[in-house]
Amino acid sequence: MSYIDMRGAVGLTHLFLRERVALGDRVVDATCGNGQDTLFLARLVGPLGMVWAFDVQEEALAKARTHLSEAGCLSRVKLLQAGHEQLAAHVEGPVQAVVFNLGYLPGSDKACITLPETTLAALKQSETVLFPGGIIVIAVYTGHPGGREEGAAVEQWVASLPYQSYSVWCSRQINRPSTVPYVIVVEKLVPGEQCGQPHL
Amino acid sequence: MSYIDMRGAVGLTHLFLRERVALGDRVVDATCGNGQDTLFLARLVGPLGMVWAFDVQEEALAKARTHLSEAGCLSRVKLLQAGHEQLAAHVEGPVQAVVFNLGYLPGSDKACITLPETTLAALKQSETVLFPGGIIVIAVYTGHPGGREEGAAVEQWVASLPYQSYSVWCSRQINRPSTVPYVIVVEKLVPGEQCGQPHL
Repeated sequence: MSYIDMRGAVGLTHLFLRERVALGDRVVDATCGNGQDTLFLARLVGPLGMVWAFDVQEEALAKARTHLSEAGCLSRVKLLQAGHEQLAAHVEGPVQAVVFNLGYLPGSDKACITLPETTLAALKQSETVLFPGGIIVIAVYTGHPGGREEGAAVEQWVASLPYQSYSVWCSRQINRPSTVPYVIVVEKLVPGEQCGQPHL
Repeated sequence: MSYIDMRGAVGLTHLFLRERVALGDRVVDATCGNGQDTLFLARLVGPLGMVWAFDVQEEALAKARTHLSEAGCLSRVKLLQAGHEQLAAHVEGPVQAVVFNLGYLPGSDKACITLPETTLAALKQSETVLFPGGIIVIAVYTGHPGGREEGAAVEQWVASLPYQSYSVWCSRQINRPSTVPYVIVVEKLVPGEQCGQPHL
């Protein structure tokens, strides 16, 4: 098993994804960008799996296409130039995981950011296409204008999910400034499964 | 790879431990109790590994001994009837992981709880015996008298660790009451290693 660097939000999201995604799974990258998470997912699901990857920016998808092609993973990825609020219209569920990397695309136009309304729409659609036992993993960025509000909106939604049906963890780097990214993971629980832990 | 139930603090600590502990490693269970985490660790490190397990309660250690023996793992575990604030005197470091399950032993005398002063002493000693790349994982319980104060003391200490040398994540179940247990993981970073993530 390869080493996953837990420094930073992306590392922690990958740790959770590797825990729940297996060969042959169907998964979604709701914020493709340059394709970093897409490639990670494509490797997790293998040649018989399927990744849907959404981005509104043509330039980002072109870069992602190049990276995926160079890694020999392009055939298992469906790159979609569409907002993730159209997720349910494109994805043939159920899927095992959906990943969100909020905020703006690194190295790009910082005016193009994810927004609370469409992010929430995409999250709600993700929940509907998710397999029981599947996860939604969200890296939240609050350093840019509007980021904090988007994070609050996401937190409010995940906090409203009933704990009997959803396990929700919010992870923060508490030896760093409060503006650094944090990670939310939502697991849709398998109905009727008992928690094996002696105390919760 | 077996399924780890992420519901509850114990599940999440096991997820982090499995990520960083491998066959042959040396590890510490700072709060042995009935031996649940000790057995998990003993299986992770295998027959060539070594687990030191601390508890002040003779009854708890007797139960742990039985469980470990039944599982065929006892020979790789050193059960110590001692407070974890004596950790450094017993453990032959460096070790790959130290786990803390704070509060009281389930099903036992609730008067016997971990306390901020000794917990902090044990945490500081854990840090000194930890390999670079190793982790301290802490399940914090706040539902009993004194639990919240102990949690605050632990958080204050981990928040003081410089981020250049320690990755610290604090994970909370934000769709549950604030009194449910939460998890802190501290990774001692390998000096000179670069973070592979594009943005932190």
